[in-house]
Amino acid sequence: MNTENRTAHAGRATYRDAGVDINAADAAKQRIAELVAATHGPQVLRGVGHFGGFFQAPGPDNPFVLVSSADSVGTKILVAEMAGQHASIGVDLVNHCVNDILACGARPLFFLDYIAAERFAPGLIEELIRGMTAACRAAGCALIGGETAQLPGIYQPGTYDLAGFIVGVVHRDLIVDGATIQPGDVLVGLPSSGLHTNGYSLARVAFGLHAGDPEARAKLAATPSWADRPLGELLLEPHRSYLPLIEPLLDSGLLRGMAHITGGGIAGNVQRVIPEGLEAIIDVRTWEPPALFRGLQQAGGIDTAEMYRVFNMGVGFVMIVRPDDAQRLTSQVDGARIIGEVQAAREPHGARARYVGLADAGGV
Amino acid sequence: MNTENRTAHAGRATYRDAGVDINAADAAKQRIAELVAATHGPQVLRGVGHFGGFFQAPGPDNPFVLVSSADSVGTKILVAEMAGQHASIGVDLVNHCVNDILACGARPLFFLDYIAAERFAPGLIEELIRGMTAACRAAGCALIGGETAQLPGIYQPGTYDLAGFIVGVVHRDLIVDGATIQPGDVLVGLPSSGLHTNGYSLARVAFGLHAGDPEARAKLAATPSWADRPLGELLLEPHRSYLPLIEPLLDSGLLRGMAHITGGGIAGNVQRVIPEGLEAIIDVRTWEPPALFRGLQQAGGIDTAEMYRVFNMGVGFVMIVRPDDAQRLTSQVDGARIIGEVQAAREPHGARARYVGLADAGGV
Repeated sequence: MNTENRTAHAGRATYRDAGVDINAADAAKQRIAELVAATHGPQVLRGVGHFGGFFQAPGPDNPFVLVSSADSVGTKILVAEMAGQHASIGVDLVNHCVNDILACGARPLFFLDYIAAERFAPGLIEELIRGMTAACRAAGCALIGGETAQLPGIYQPGTYDLAGFIVGVVHRDLIVDGATIQPGDVLVGLPSSGLHTNGYSLARVAFGLHAGDPEARAKLAATPSWADRPLGELLLEPHRSYLPLIEPLLDSGLLRGMAHITGGGIAGNVQRVIPEGLEAIIDVRTWEPPALFRGLQQAGGIDTAEMYRVFNMGVGFVMIVRPDDAQRLTSQVDGARIIGEVQAAREPHGARARYVGLADAGGV
Repeated sequence: MNTENRTAHAGRATYRDAGVDINAADAAKQRIAELVAATHGPQVLRGVGHFGGFFQAPGPDNPFVLVSSADSVGTKILVAEMAGQHASIGVDLVNHCVNDILACGARPLFFLDYIAAERFAPGLIEELIRGMTAACRAAGCALIGGETAQLPGIYQPGTYDLAGFIVGVVHRDLIVDGATIQPGDVLVGLPSSGLHTNGYSLARVAFGLHAGDPEARAKLAATPSWADRPLGELLLEPHRSYLPLIEPLLDSGLLRGMAHITGGGIAGNVQRVIPEGLEAIIDVRTWEPPALFRGLQQAGGIDTAEMYRVFNMGVGFVMIVRPDDAQRLTSQVDGARIIGEVQAAREPHGARARYVGLADAGGV
């Protein structure tokens, strides 16, 4: 029932699973990877960065590397339409992009947007830009271009899509890509502000929020028994930017790996930065998922494992550091909490991250 | 009947007309411009570049400037669907982006894509990437990232959208932005390869190509009386890249202004680089539009002025140079032809480009 599927390719440029027939997937992914690799010259840094693409900045003996990422916000847009408010969607898009390159150690430089619809409702573009520019200002990032497109026949009437593109910068000696991660290193999680921008197709089904349903707005305005504010506020809470928390640490050298938790959940994203031969063990008993996730699981009758596969479960960003540094971070960084550790892999070619404690994590 | 509307904002960052209610347009554009400008620090080069956004490249005393653009290909995608072939759409997207930053004097560095649909048809992503990577290789541009998204409820079933983001580079002393254009300078036009990526909503209506029409594929396979090959080939001919023709001239200093002819036609795009107090006069009698444009005009009963407002009419790129240089260029550059000149403006705040000779340009 959850057919939403959003995947990024960056660095090693693989289109993970996206829309590729399962039987033909491996062969197709291999062909795509080869096509993409054939466009890469020496200015592309290969094999680093799984949340952004790395390109040598121009200029003689330039020690800086440009890090870029393309993102969209998915069907959170449909919830925004039901609620009739869109500025937060602009914030979502920018912060998603900011966090992706941040996970590589990069600070944002500039941003461009693409907004498309069958036809734009009056004021929509301005509202989206109001959100994007607010998030850009907060991130010290310039909005320097974009495109808007009215495309009848491609988009569903009354809806729209929004994609963003960010370019940031990191000194080549300060790239964070997980390469130095060792057994015994610790995973430090940072709280999310809600679902961020993933899992909305499943969440909409769980809460019975169907496009065109005249009661959808009333459902969003109501406060569920398990919540302290209306469902619409919980679902549209903007994707949090981790830049204010992480930026002071970027030059410290203590960050061995970082993961922005998007589609695929904590394990699905942490595994992108774990080196071969190691695995990250995420102990789900180390934190309590916020009420929204429990309410969502119950409303949708969703399996616990599926919840941790689709949603961030309250952890939106993960730092991987030495044990000593982990103690310091959890006392210094607001909301930081140890959620797991890195071990030698049980199987040489298995998944590089997995959950433990799922059976005790509650559920329906 | 032509409700497609695609607009870029770059450099001075205005969302020209896009989906903004006409009465409220000026006030909204002003508010949007102020919101966007508030994100700009000293690294954003203001007031230069109307086809790309300019950002100072990182690194001490770096003389290079990054030039970026976001683009999409519009409803040409619907024609590709009718014909069942998509690789050329990937070429369209990359070349559109390449030409936009080329018009600022920039060479491409890297590219990211965004592909979204209700659901991906098997092989679609690979076909699009095959086209994008071929065009990237030809342009010396690395495909370093992107995102694919399956978003039920946002896209029409059976269709998709595709957006691209390019970053290129230009030495700050070699930025081409029209600032040095003088009265007496000459417009040199370069041939387009077809409609490129603009005007497809109008073209589809003119040729009776309706999505879901079972006869559409047969119409595309047929060769019209005025054509020498099938209509589908003419309409899906890839957007031409002008990089091979223009790159040898980029360091020469002879290019005072360049315009990539996209939505808005020749005048609509040339006026973006003409300084205040001047106007470009485009004499439509100086070239013969290819048969496709005449066939399209006749099929759709389209007014001549509308044709020149919507389509490139056979001129896909314009260089603005001194008269002496124009003579040299037309003898050296394949297909180059003088199509107009720059004069002191008749009215101080009028349009900065206009057509002459439209009454003699034929039509229906």
